[in-house]
Amino acid sequence: MKSLKNRRTIRKYSDKPVSDKLLNELLEIAARTSTTGNMQLYSVIVTRDESMKATLAPAHFNQPMATQAPVVLTICADFNRFNKWCILRNAVPGYDNFVSFFNAAMDALFFAQTFCVAAEEKGLGICYLGTTTYNPDKIIDILALPKFVIPVTTITLGYPEVIPPQPDRLPIESFVHHETYNDYKPQDIDSYYSNKESLPENHQFIKENHKETLAQVFTDVRYKKADNEHFSKVLLETLKRQGFHKG
Amino acid sequence: MKSLKNRRTIRKYSDKPVSDKLLNELLEIAARTSTTGNMQLYSVIVTRDESMKATLAPAHFNQPMATQAPVVLTICADFNRFNKWCILRNAVPGYDNFVSFFNAAMDALFFAQTFCVAAEEKGLGICYLGTTTYNPDKIIDILALPKFVIPVTTITLGYPEVIPPQPDRLPIESFVHHETYNDYKPQDIDSYYSNKESLPENHQFIKENHKETLAQVFTDVRYKKADNEHFSKVLLETLKRQGFHKG
Repeated sequence: MKSLKNRRTIRKYSDKPVSDKLLNELLEIAARTSTTGNMQLYSVIVTRDESMKATLAPAHFNQPMATQAPVVLTICADFNRFNKWCILRNAVPGYDNFVSFFNAAMDALFFAQTFCVAAEEKGLGICYLGTTTYNPDKIIDILALPKFVIPVTTITLGYPEVIPPQPDRLPIESFVHHETYNDYKPQDIDSYYSNKESLPENHQFIKENHKETLAQVFTDVRYKKADNEHFSKVLLETLKRQGFHKG
Repeated sequence: MKSLKNRRTIRKYSDKPVSDKLLNELLEIAARTSTTGNMQLYSVIVTRDESMKATLAPAHFNQPMATQAPVVLTICADFNRFNKWCILRNAVPGYDNFVSFFNAAMDALFFAQTFCVAAEEKGLGICYLGTTTYNPDKIIDILALPKFVIPVTTITLGYPEVIPPQPDRLPIESFVHHETYNDYKPQDIDSYYSNKESLPENHQFIKENHKETLAQVFTDVRYKKADNEHFSKVLLETLKRQGFHKG
């Protein structure tokens, strides 16, 4: 529980290697995670090779973690293995559709998160790369992912070089609702976001970006409408290309 | 690590209540989970009321856990809170699109999984209800979820009444690939699925369902093409209805 409470994302890694033995132990623990009908609809691509990391890096917008981490794990929603099993066993798979992709993505994401918790418990640090679903097409080509396999997230893994301060979080009453959804009034929003908006680093963030409010840094700089619409198209086209074409 | 290695899904709960104090502690721990740009794009609806559980139950195909568990948590991808904050801060949100839904779903699923790990560490048991994304429209109506909020999974929570045997899992070499994806040959599939296919409970499962192979139980009984296509339509229509309409 202590490592869960104290956790922070680690973006700078030491030279200490991550052994195959430890990595395999963590992958085996993660496979205990809940999975849809015990189908285990995921695969993990382990990248240790420096030239493979460099090839993947542009798909992650060259974030330094993508090459600096000793291990990079691409976590994929995978119906390929299950489909192949079905076909070899005289069964006709019906998983070329959106909900099947989503089931596989859930399996993959639950697996990824248990892996991260276990890794942190062992003293390792992780960072998720959200860029995975922005450039899934490029990652598919680089890692030679077949039909029915889609990368959904990437974990960079290593021993921490620098342990940063813990970031702020919203108070739990802001995201917990009892019995039905209690929609937010302006005064609720003011109250829930006041701590975040008061932080010196966020004032700095607004200044650096020449914006009026922290929210504008998100909408105009970090997570822009035009980018989101572009990445939505890429992701939906990738679902179709990989075989999940039935709406 | 021990509770991770020994975990199993719990479907029968004892009468021992889950205190608000413990529930809040677990929700606070789960909020330490990695989240896209620290936006925390999730909400949790806590159901304790018996009549609310009964109202939700049909959306979960009346699985007994949905009413027998002392606590039911509906985990939602939520861009509503963030959008409201943006609008109040003179920022124009651009999150009415598919990739934004997927980012919020990832946040919600990572949060859910950390919650489950922490709950299990405290001696509680959980079961995920995959039915959530089959009937999101019904759940939205019952829980009064506004636009930009979509339920992505449900956790039933309580102290275990019965601890079942641990289910089988595929060997790690079946889902781990090194550097590039090593696609499966028929002999790989035979080897990876042989343990699962040899289990007496799976022989029983084939017999009960009058099928030839275990894979046919999945394709013809448990996860059928026609159901998947129907649920895909429902989920995609729900995305549109809740505001994530831009592809």
